[in-house]
Amino acid sequence: MTKMTITETAALLRQMDNILILTHVRPDGDTIGSAAALCRALRDMGKTAYLLPNGEITATYAPYAAPYWAGEGFNPDYVVAVDIATVGLFPGNALPYAQRVDLCIDHHPSNTGYARALCLDDTSAAAAEIVYAVIRELTPLTADIALPLYVGIATDCGCFQYGNTTPRSHRIAAELMALVDVSEVNRQLFRVKSRVRLAMESRMVAEMELYDQGRVVVMQIPLALRREFGATDADIEELSSLAAQVEGTDCGITLRELQPGKIKISLRTGPRVDACAACAILGGGGHRAAAGATVEGTMEEVKARVLSAVAEVTSRG
Amino acid sequence: MTKMTITETAALLRQMDNILILTHVRPDGDTIGSAAALCRALRDMGKTAYLLPNGEITATYAPYAAPYWAGEGFNPDYVVAVDIATVGLFPGNALPYAQRVDLCIDHHPSNTGYARALCLDDTSAAAAEIVYAVIRELTPLTADIALPLYVGIATDCGCFQYGNTTPRSHRIAAELMALVDVSEVNRQLFRVKSRVRLAMESRMVAEMELYDQGRVVVMQIPLALRREFGATDADIEELSSLAAQVEGTDCGITLRELQPGKIKISLRTGPRVDACAACAILGGGGHRAAAGATVEGTMEEVKARVLSAVAEVTSRG
Repeated sequence: MTKMTITETAALLRQMDNILILTHVRPDGDTIGSAAALCRALRDMGKTAYLLPNGEITATYAPYAAPYWAGEGFNPDYVVAVDIATVGLFPGNALPYAQRVDLCIDHHPSNTGYARALCLDDTSAAAAEIVYAVIRELTPLTADIALPLYVGIATDCGCFQYGNTTPRSHRIAAELMALVDVSEVNRQLFRVKSRVRLAMESRMVAEMELYDQGRVVVMQIPLALRREFGATDADIEELSSLAAQVEGTDCGITLRELQPGKIKISLRTGPRVDACAACAILGGGGHRAAAGATVEGTMEEVKARVLSAVAEVTSRG
Repeated sequence: MTKMTITETAALLRQMDNILILTHVRPDGDTIGSAAALCRALRDMGKTAYLLPNGEITATYAPYAAPYWAGEGFNPDYVVAVDIATVGLFPGNALPYAQRVDLCIDHHPSNTGYARALCLDDTSAAAAEIVYAVIRELTPLTADIALPLYVGIATDCGCFQYGNTTPRSHRIAAELMALVDVSEVNRQLFRVKSRVRLAMESRMVAEMELYDQGRVVVMQIPLALRREFGATDADIEELSSLAAQVEGTDCGITLRELQPGKIKISLRTGPRVDACAACAILGGGGHRAAAGATVEGTMEEVKARVLSAVAEVTSRG
């Protein structure tokens, strides 16, 4: 694996053609926005480029990716992964490419270095900030590039609220906003909530559990709750940010039952708790203030394990 | 009344000393942040400057204003109002100064021109953006100036989510963030919610009413609800943004009972509904997408009047 600067990454992309871009499981705004912007930029340069279809795409992000999905017959010469820290986060249909990723653009410190070339900057709030810097060296920014880049940056930094936001995030946003009206996108991504989502949030708040003198809060999204409200994937997207909102807590734990016996853990933490270290104990990873893991077990079993992992990394610190 | 540019406003302030700065009723982050930053900057220039104590200050914004409150004996030579559109929004203790405001710095298009000099820019997301530009001409930015400016801008544009956010808002934020860590401020202002607030939100969602084929949503905060939960002013701050979050609506109306028979109306609207025009019918004002009015009557009476005002401005458009 070779580490690449922004300029080296741009040079490498200039040499490529027939490019397939990969996104991660449970795709978020950053992986989709980064991939769509990069794909658009490569096409603007006259290259053939596609996104590998991601079966888990939600209605929220589908519009950004839809113009770029590869057809079944596409046989790439080069493969690029964006915002994917490890092969373990490849969707099933991306696994055939796991040993032949030519370039990975990422901002996760936990990146395993699975790609031949890696452009990593873990000071970036979003992979889209790195993709922005690469595209700036390749082709003029257009509205079609600016919009998905904005979505990537804004979603990963909670619309400039989270601690990963930097002056650079704001400067890039200023430049992108000059090219495309983002007010409706902001409204849809950050403010509008479906009535199903509002009802689920109310229930999660009513049933939340507090631990460790109220500093740790656990919220749960069992499959039964999803079924009761007929919630779609879009209805529960980013619901894990809710736990971090409870005053007096600095460790928000959300347990989401993906299927019976398989629980997705999301941690959102303050400085006292290293979320990445806690999730690493459970086989996951992420960032210091936001991390996740997927664990087998019942809700009660997984809750006990994550509380134990949080206690362990807290006592270490 | 003389209209002033940024440079003229800076020149005017350079000539002043013994300055009293006024903020508006039910003070928000913009009026307090603008006033505190201006006061700090004037003091950095060696001037005597104070804020007129605002009895309605909440725990959220008190820390920004506390170092600058004037004592009882302060007798100013000059009076400056920030973010106050009309004398009708002066707190009671500011009324003695209503006929002698030397300078008003504001971003409300509805400003009535009550001050001798007016520096108005209604393209600014916040009065704090104008205050920032004025301070840039007067004295070096410091962390003590940057923090309240950031609070003013971020609170008035919903942390860069609302349609009033411009590239300039982001560029100023980038500069301010380089001087002061805003991550904890963002968390406290935009994410953390007290358990009382979370419970009140749940109730408001459960009891919301939809009108006009679901495009108009009405939420209510009767005094009885506040009493039931023992809610403080800080608990209900900005609760009016909740109504605008309901999917499928573009006109969020919040009715808050200030005292029996006196209702504060808050409107948050999409392009279809001119909130300022609707509130003007009811004796209030504000911006196109966010406006307010205070009206006498029962909840039911006021609800009927605001729905009628919304219908009237919508049919005009």
